[in-house]
Amino acid sequence: MTDKLIIFDTTLRDGEQSPGASMTRDEKLRIARQLERLRVDVIEAGFAASSNGDFLAVKAIADAIKESTVCSLARANDRDISRAAEALQGAARARIHTFIATSPLHMEKKLRMTPEQVLEQARLAVRFARKLRDDVEFSAEDGYRSEPDFLCRVIEAAIAEGATTINIPDTVGYAIPELYGAFIRNLRERVPNSDKAIWSVHCHNDLGMAVANSLAGVKIGGARQIECTINGLGERAGNCSLEEVVMAVKTRRDYFGLEVGIDTTQIVPASRMVSQTTGFVVQPNKAVVGANAFAHASGIHQDGVLKARDTYEIMRAEDVGWSANKIVLGKLSGRNAFKQRLQELGIELESEAEVNAAFARFKDLADRKSEIFDEDIIALVGDESVTSEIEHYRLIALSQGSETGERPHAEVVFAAGTTEFRAESEGNGPVDACLKAIESKVQSGAELVLYSVNAITSGSTESQGEVTVRLQHSGRIVNGVGADPDIIVASVKAYLAALSKLHSQADRISAQG
Amino acid sequence: MTDKLIIFDTTLRDGEQSPGASMTRDEKLRIARQLERLRVDVIEAGFAASSNGDFLAVKAIADAIKESTVCSLARANDRDISRAAEALQGAARARIHTFIATSPLHMEKKLRMTPEQVLEQARLAVRFARKLRDDVEFSAEDGYRSEPDFLCRVIEAAIAEGATTINIPDTVGYAIPELYGAFIRNLRERVPNSDKAIWSVHCHNDLGMAVANSLAGVKIGGARQIECTINGLGERAGNCSLEEVVMAVKTRRDYFGLEVGIDTTQIVPASRMVSQTTGFVVQPNKAVVGANAFAHASGIHQDGVLKARDTYEIMRAEDVGWSANKIVLGKLSGRNAFKQRLQELGIELESEAEVNAAFARFKDLADRKSEIFDEDIIALVGDESVTSEIEHYRLIALSQGSETGERPHAEVVFAAGTTEFRAESEGNGPVDACLKAIESKVQSGAELVLYSVNAITSGSTESQGEVTVRLQHSGRIVNGVGADPDIIVASVKAYLAALSKLHSQADRISAQG
Repeated sequence: MTDKLIIFDTTLRDGEQSPGASMTRDEKLRIARQLERLRVDVIEAGFAASSNGDFLAVKAIADAIKESTVCSLARANDRDISRAAEALQGAARARIHTFIATSPLHMEKKLRMTPEQVLEQARLAVRFARKLRDDVEFSAEDGYRSEPDFLCRVIEAAIAEGATTINIPDTVGYAIPELYGAFIRNLRERVPNSDKAIWSVHCHNDLGMAVANSLAGVKIGGARQIECTINGLGERAGNCSLEEVVMAVKTRRDYFGLEVGIDTTQIVPASRMVSQTTGFVVQPNKAVVGANAFAHASGIHQDGVLKARDTYEIMRAEDVGWSANKIVLGKLSGRNAFKQRLQELGIELESEAEVNAAFARFKDLADRKSEIFDEDIIALVGDESVTSEIEHYRLIALSQGSETGERPHAEVVFAAGTTEFRAESEGNGPVDACLKAIESKVQSGAELVLYSVNAITSGSTESQGEVTVRLQHSGRIVNGVGADPDIIVASVKAYLAALSKLHSQADRISAQG
Repeated sequence: MTDKLIIFDTTLRDGEQSPGASMTRDEKLRIARQLERLRVDVIEAGFAASSNGDFLAVKAIADAIKESTVCSLARANDRDISRAAEALQGAARARIHTFIATSPLHMEKKLRMTPEQVLEQARLAVRFARKLRDDVEFSAEDGYRSEPDFLCRVIEAAIAEGATTINIPDTVGYAIPELYGAFIRNLRERVPNSDKAIWSVHCHNDLGMAVANSLAGVKIGGARQIECTINGLGERAGNCSLEEVVMAVKTRRDYFGLEVGIDTTQIVPASRMVSQTTGFVVQPNKAVVGANAFAHASGIHQDGVLKARDTYEIMRAEDVGWSANKIVLGKLSGRNAFKQRLQELGIELESEAEVNAAFARFKDLADRKSEIFDEDIIALVGDESVTSEIEHYRLIALSQGSETGERPHAEVVFAAGTTEFRAESEGNGPVDACLKAIESKVQSGAELVLYSVNAITSGSTESQGEVTVRLQHSGRIVNGVGADPDIIVASVKAYLAALSKLHSQADRISAQG
């Protein structure tokens, strides 16, 4: 048993499967780069066989990432595993992660297979994967609700075939720390070849205990890998939060006695990037990355906070990457200063053309906003990357007005591909009027299922508004994000971005874990 | 040891202390009524001695609540305890909750007292409180970081003086489940008169383990009261979430074997009310009450969700109060229908005048919005109650417009007390222009530290926008909430509501726990 704890991040796979959290290839690549800066040991980049888009995203990440192991999920069949291996070809370090459900409920209702068939398929899948890659992880889906005798047989077979990591997920978030810890320990004691693999935990947060369960799997059970996501992103109540579990191991090193390789100062930037990309807000009272998590970092200077700091805080805000808003650039900043700041923020744009486009947006923003913060730059670049790849609909011009006693009205000029449209409408409010105007031409039939706005920088009414629009159509859900000092313009940008995604996104297979 | 678990809600005390979460008396009363519907055993209504406003809020709740015990916090001194008892005079069932810190760090740095002084003060405080009320809780602040020998002496003394509940908080969120459980068990085994009191846990979520720690305190430690808040509201990363801890005990009854009196169908309404009142958003991937917590309740109808429901969900959405949006009222609905719907939603307005004012707003909304949902009504009434109490600034009329290439502009007419102002300004966006116009007359000097918008109802671009504005001035932080189909109008209402609170709010003492 080593004292190194492996951090396996699945934001881009299990996190991204969350309804409404789907990301484009460019967005995933940007987040993967941030995960590499965060020094996660393994990045699960996607599920290559689930769609062509997923395949390309896994491939792009495998080609770009040098420091972290890149992993693709694959069901326990040859086709999925081959696709995963193919997507991972360019990786410096690659892992194939194959899974099959082992609980009675899942085998019967979802797989419609007998236990013996599941055992055989697991065996063959690991055998095949090991022919393609040395680093193979096997997951027993819904493992915690599986019958222990059967689960031991499956795990023993997987290790015998060469699986190097064995993962026991609490797929439905049903576990209690002491029970889950004992469950893992029991398996490790009973499986004869258990010392030939690293054991892993993967917990969901349905009862609010994913972090504690993961840590019990490590401390009590002897696991040495934790699967987690930034902000606890994931289906339903989400996965174990990377930031919480890592800071718990660091803060309570006296108890856990484990090494983690994470650069914790990259946690808050990673959290913001994931939140801005998916439009999933982080609540203020979220541990580690919530705006209120550290009293003295939230712009609050109440009496006694400084005195109370060491009496009430067990972590230091700066250790997880909180820093004061800094005015970094203004109207007079040149292209080189802008490019240098991008580098300092760890943002790598793909080409000079992208830098130019981002710089043009920056100048446009600086004309309207006197103080440009790091967050503005991140939003600006995010906005750029979102639209650069799939920009089918684009805003050209907008005019709107409202007055007490009158119906708000709007006129929007926008492009759809190469066609220009001019549309007018009234509405309940100016945003409604704009969206109705656009829909009158596009006729997408999409349903608006979420609309939210956050100011990107605080401390000034000059903040940019960042709008997230979530649309649903024919069972598909997409997010569009738009940022602008004018909230109406940001809303329209977000709406057009979401429509563009609906226009381009293809169906794909979902996996659970 | 009984098999009944006492749920002690401290949303209105420890939750409300969170920077930015302060509430008016009317808001607290409304939430207290919802907590009573939720059937919590104890409602901690506030900290009576901390300010006159807090005293009046505790008193109003004590007078109104019949089913739950109403509790006030008090430091371990006679004045605080007398004030608490006075505020609780009208209560059907009342509890005085007195506390003092027992950890070396807090005794030395915060209290500047010796352990013997702390022990003596705890003893005297409980003795005094028991003269006034039979139900007395004693909390050892920062108990988990206290020296066990000393803590045992303090607890023994408190029980000897008649404390009926003994609470051992993990004030800074430092605990690990198995350690915290063993800590409580050890205390209970060592304190000679430990069986004369009910033991309680109070956990903070700084490392994401408040729920698991609380449950370990119960299962391993033998505690029979859990202190918690709706949505996990609270300072820093917040407190143990009521909804998570209650659903864990219910869902894993096989393990805990405990009875809780909570009506779980009131959980989601309580969560929404607290979120709307404080402006603290609930992230979509929040367990139990997040919009995504139950896939099939989030407006999503993906293939296989119904098939997967029992395979992936361990709780039923309807059991915690999720229900489909219902169109309940429209333009033609009369005052009686409106009043009846208020009753069905559990909203009790104080007077006929308030019902009339809410109905007038309802008619105004129905003129502009064809479908009125339950959420609209809740917002409408919330909006009403916020302003009825402290309405110093009021919106009279607003006109705004923006156009690509031009600076957005706005004209706002508003009242400040009995004076009417007309103000104009340009801005980066229409919201900025409106806020600048108002500030040009009010000259509050307040800093905008948060601006967020959520659509109240989904499924339509006709949704109302609900805007939260958080202002900071001279160390005080206030929230204003405004709802309107026009996001600009909602923003202005929220801004004026926040300015009104700044105008009226008095300073008060903060307590930690």
